[in-house]
Amino acid sequence: MALTVSFLRDSCMLTGLSTVGRKAELLQKLISTPVHTTKNVLAVDLGIHNLAVCSLSASKQGESPVIHHWLMDDLCRPDNVFGVKWSGKFELPEIADLAYQLLARLHVLFQPQYILLEKQRFRTGRATIPEWTLRVNSLECMLHGIHYAQRQIDSAKPQSRLLAINPKQAYTYWSRTTDCHVTGQTYANNKSCRVDLVRELLATNQLVLKLPNGESQFQQFQKEKDNITKHTPKKRQFDLADSALLGLAWIRWQYQLQTFQSMYTDAIMTAKSDPNSRKKLEPLVTQVN
Amino acid sequence: MALTVSFLRDSCMLTGLSTVGRKAELLQKLISTPVHTTKNVLAVDLGIHNLAVCSLSASKQGESPVIHHWLMDDLCRPDNVFGVKWSGKFELPEIADLAYQLLARLHVLFQPQYILLEKQRFRTGRATIPEWTLRVNSLECMLHGIHYAQRQIDSAKPQSRLLAINPKQAYTYWSRTTDCHVTGQTYANNKSCRVDLVRELLATNQLVLKLPNGESQFQQFQKEKDNITKHTPKKRQFDLADSALLGLAWIRWQYQLQTFQSMYTDAIMTAKSDPNSRKKLEPLVTQVN
Repeated sequence: MALTVSFLRDSCMLTGLSTVGRKAELLQKLISTPVHTTKNVLAVDLGIHNLAVCSLSASKQGESPVIHHWLMDDLCRPDNVFGVKWSGKFELPEIADLAYQLLARLHVLFQPQYILLEKQRFRTGRATIPEWTLRVNSLECMLHGIHYAQRQIDSAKPQSRLLAINPKQAYTYWSRTTDCHVTGQTYANNKSCRVDLVRELLATNQLVLKLPNGESQFQQFQKEKDNITKHTPKKRQFDLADSALLGLAWIRWQYQLQTFQSMYTDAIMTAKSDPNSRKKLEPLVTQVN
Repeated sequence: MALTVSFLRDSCMLTGLSTVGRKAELLQKLISTPVHTTKNVLAVDLGIHNLAVCSLSASKQGESPVIHHWLMDDLCRPDNVFGVKWSGKFELPEIADLAYQLLARLHVLFQPQYILLEKQRFRTGRATIPEWTLRVNSLECMLHGIHYAQRQIDSAKPQSRLLAINPKQAYTYWSRTTDCHVTGQTYANNKSCRVDLVRELLATNQLVLKLPNGESQFQQFQKEKDNITKHTPKKRQFDLADSALLGLAWIRWQYQLQTFQSMYTDAIMTAKSDPNSRKKLEPLVTQVN
């Protein structure tokens, strides 16, 4: 195993880390990023009208993660499945109330140890920013703020970790490790490919469904491919697929990162004791120690 | 006093309320908006590199509000006057940490009963949104989220109220009630007019300065008008002026609202007992009861 830049970049891609940086920086990142091992992960595809969550558990490497809940709803609906009651007003105090309730309900419903919140993009450089996007950004910021405050105020209480996950890393991971072209095409085609990918993962038992009775809206993932376009009522499949892919990618990244960290530690130890390879690795070893 | 639409619009303008709406809606707003009477008000002109705060107290109507603290600094500076220590990283958890610290420090330093946070504008419709603007928006959302969470978690503890104030209402108020053209000109001229207005308010004792020793950066407000442009180091005057104008306008709105509410209540009571004027006011009376 040679610690080439290209190898390190691939390692970063496989562990959900940015592939930008110099050799020593990449290695540093791979070695120092903490590995999260956990049972209950809640992946959230954030939206106000389209909130999708996927609750997964992963017991150990080599076993397929299990989806226990997979839900999507419109937070503006009075009887939404998340049990959030909201005024529907987009003033800041009202969005704060929505965020506070939502976080509480996600904890009650899914008892997550890790909440993975898909990072919203600001989409700068476009002629206009849709107001809706900015409202979702506000909700995202408030969720982070509220979660941070809760951990500060009541630090004794066992609480979840809230992580902001860049969806780009997940899409890159899936397009590099599967035959599905989940990026690089049109919006609708990318989305459609992601639904196909989830179907494939379910069909090959790389993802296992153990949903309670009543969560039947996902059986469509088992069905034949329909003619899905952006504007069909099946749009919710897209968001459900995204939440599952985010959760599964993140779980795999943790396993990969664990594996790589032991590999690198061994490599660095070897380099230290072997004068020849030591010389070659010197700049890295110095930096990462 | 005739309850004409134009009179009600003016009343809304003088109390910081939006002047949009039908007659009955305007009256409803003027009657039902709660009046905040308080001693310690902290007006915040939000920014990361340019955070300006003005801490004012107002004992009763007719007496000029007093500025007790009037500070401005760059939160990225390690020894900023607010005592905030921050990584300078713009990842969401780091902005949450900044917001949490800032809120705590503002409470410690100024013991405000009301924190007036100038509402950030998303500036949609422009070709691009500066990334910096969006970062400040994130900070704003987090401050609201954290404050909301703190009030929920520790509701027994006496806490401040955090209000989002639309700066447009303040600028409209000042341009309508003074000779200063604080809106409608170029950016630099508007800003410059606002600095002039604060100088005028100080010179005529409508605002009283009682700053502790050491807060000397404001003495420039007393000096002769310099050739101020957007890019001079005097830019900080602009933000300081805005925070003072926001705080003073809000205090005046509360007094006005109190006055108007007793006026309207009297008018409605009279209308009820007098059959003639009652007929004229009937639609309003029905709606506001």
